[in-house]
Amino acid sequence: MVAVCERIAVIGAGSWGSVLANTLVLNGLKVRIWSRRQEQVDELNNLHTNRHYLADFEYDSRLQATTELKKVIEGATVILLVVPTKAIRMVSRQIAALLAPNDKKTVIAHASKGLELGTHKRISEIIAEEIPEDRRNGIVALSGPSHAEEVACHDLTLVTAASENQEAAKHIQKIFMNEYFRVYTNSDIIGVELGAAFKNIIALGAGALHGLGYGDDAKAALITRGLAEIARLGVALGAEPLTFIGLTGVGDLIVTCTSVHSRNWRAGDQLGRGEDLKKVVANMGMVIEGINTTKAAYELAQQEKIEMPITEAIYDVIYKGRKIKDAILELMKREGRSEEETKN
Amino acid sequence: MVAVCERIAVIGAGSWGSVLANTLVLNGLKVRIWSRRQEQVDELNNLHTNRHYLADFEYDSRLQATTELKKVIEGATVILLVVPTKAIRMVSRQIAALLAPNDKKTVIAHASKGLELGTHKRISEIIAEEIPEDRRNGIVALSGPSHAEEVACHDLTLVTAASENQEAAKHIQKIFMNEYFRVYTNSDIIGVELGAAFKNIIALGAGALHGLGYGDDAKAALITRGLAEIARLGVALGAEPLTFIGLTGVGDLIVTCTSVHSRNWRAGDQLGRGEDLKKVVANMGMVIEGINTTKAAYELAQQEKIEMPITEAIYDVIYKGRKIKDAILELMKREGRSEEETKN
Repeated sequence: MVAVCERIAVIGAGSWGSVLANTLVLNGLKVRIWSRRQEQVDELNNLHTNRHYLADFEYDSRLQATTELKKVIEGATVILLVVPTKAIRMVSRQIAALLAPNDKKTVIAHASKGLELGTHKRISEIIAEEIPEDRRNGIVALSGPSHAEEVACHDLTLVTAASENQEAAKHIQKIFMNEYFRVYTNSDIIGVELGAAFKNIIALGAGALHGLGYGDDAKAALITRGLAEIARLGVALGAEPLTFIGLTGVGDLIVTCTSVHSRNWRAGDQLGRGEDLKKVVANMGMVIEGINTTKAAYELAQQEKIEMPITEAIYDVIYKGRKIKDAILELMKREGRSEEETKN
Repeated sequence: MVAVCERIAVIGAGSWGSVLANTLVLNGLKVRIWSRRQEQVDELNNLHTNRHYLADFEYDSRLQATTELKKVIEGATVILLVVPTKAIRMVSRQIAALLAPNDKKTVIAHASKGLELGTHKRISEIIAEEIPEDRRNGIVALSGPSHAEEVACHDLTLVTAASENQEAAKHIQKIFMNEYFRVYTNSDIIGVELGAAFKNIIALGAGALHGLGYGDDAKAALITRGLAEIARLGVALGAEPLTFIGLTGVGDLIVTCTSVHSRNWRAGDQLGRGEDLKKVVANMGMVIEGINTTKAAYELAQQEKIEMPITEAIYDVIYKGRKIKDAILELMKREGRSEEETKN
């Protein structure tokens, strides 16, 4: 069982970070959450709200927010990073400076979804580079089909805690597991992180199809063909094929491509309706991870010589100014072929 | 290319059969469709409607309907069966009697989704038993994420033509392929037919979750865990694992579990809301294949010693009068474990 005196540090107070922190508080743990914005910290501590991210949700009053990173991670048995992908390296470096060498007590976990631009590295790879091995007890990715809005309301959610270090994964499973938030462990952190990152590309495509007026048959076909292509690239990069039919693969893909809560889907939908990309990004007011991930996946596909027609189409729209309607139509009108050909 | 003088016989004038027949007419083929009900035949021939199945759709006036089986299959290069699973054996036997021995010109295709009660046989196995090999040129299953309502409106749809006989599969691909109806071939007819049948069980479960008030996270989790268990049983029965992440596996599962057009999902939704099973069946006015398929899959799982917790829960509700809320809650509260354990 979880020691109730355990102290958990959550880094990042967006919608997902703040709801995960609140879930841990409700599970009986002592939780501090870090944000760099004093205004947001004051709102969380005094009003117990986080209105920019979850308009109508009230947080447990025991959740403590602060802008001081040192104070947050002090005595924490788990440090959970939930910041945008592009901030992971800098934040990890700051944390590393605050952790004692040869003190392998702290599990580092993250719940972010993306790949680093330029290096194409996974989140856990960035963390491993920035936080020396002697200052941590394993790195865990927490991922799966989950919307902050639903977990906030105690809607049933199943997620995966993935790590090469199974003790660390089980620790994360233990602190989160409750009646409505169910955690499975998994040893394939490569597959879990790649699935989580790549599905946002397909979500952009599924949203675009919707915005262009296509129906459920087309959406299901795109998700299926999308799953096949992200699994192809993932396996080339060292993932286990079966991970892509698990919670962090097809599960997360389904929820991201069929739920109105997904901001990647919503961004795609607006692109499909003919909105300008810059305007879409500005309107969202939150990070759309799929935009950077599309670039990373496109470059990786070129490097690994993997055919990824959906990713290429989305890339052309975002980075080459191609008309989304033309890109999707060409995609859909490819020659009749065997379904098995593209499984390889 | 397709010979436009080719004659196609469609057996069964429900929503899917009649829309497939209409698609072939629009593709330039000569199509006759069979129904046993004179009233429906008259409506199709005279009013070009089929109101019980698709209320507001007008069929092409070139589509010819008849109650005479002999007339429908005369000179047909393809006979496409789209009748409920329980009628497949009888209809196949009647067709066999009308085909000439040692005349291997006719491709037999079907677009039905289920397993025979008692024998647990797949549709193509029943056809193979009833139509002797010397009277046919291959058996093809046409399947995938497709709603008659969307194909009728020329919404983009991708499906699979599966057969051990690749020439036969390509023939079906050729006659159907057009701008909005895209056909892939596949050699794993076992996996295609089992995926098509079993997904209706998971659709009942996804509908029930919705009816009970659960959200998108729970739905995605159920679809994912459902895919894992139907793939386990399918592979034990000889299917290729990869087929379950293709159009007829995850694709059809997604569309059936997330689209309001799915009658299995609608039936589950009503059960979740507390409706009586008999009343749900009576209200639907169309066959709910998932109800019989649940029994067949449950028995096969026992026989093959495969763990299928979702199928067992649905079975208990339908055949043992268990309360759906209790069945789903127990399912969701199973012990925390490794995601990989249940992949085997």
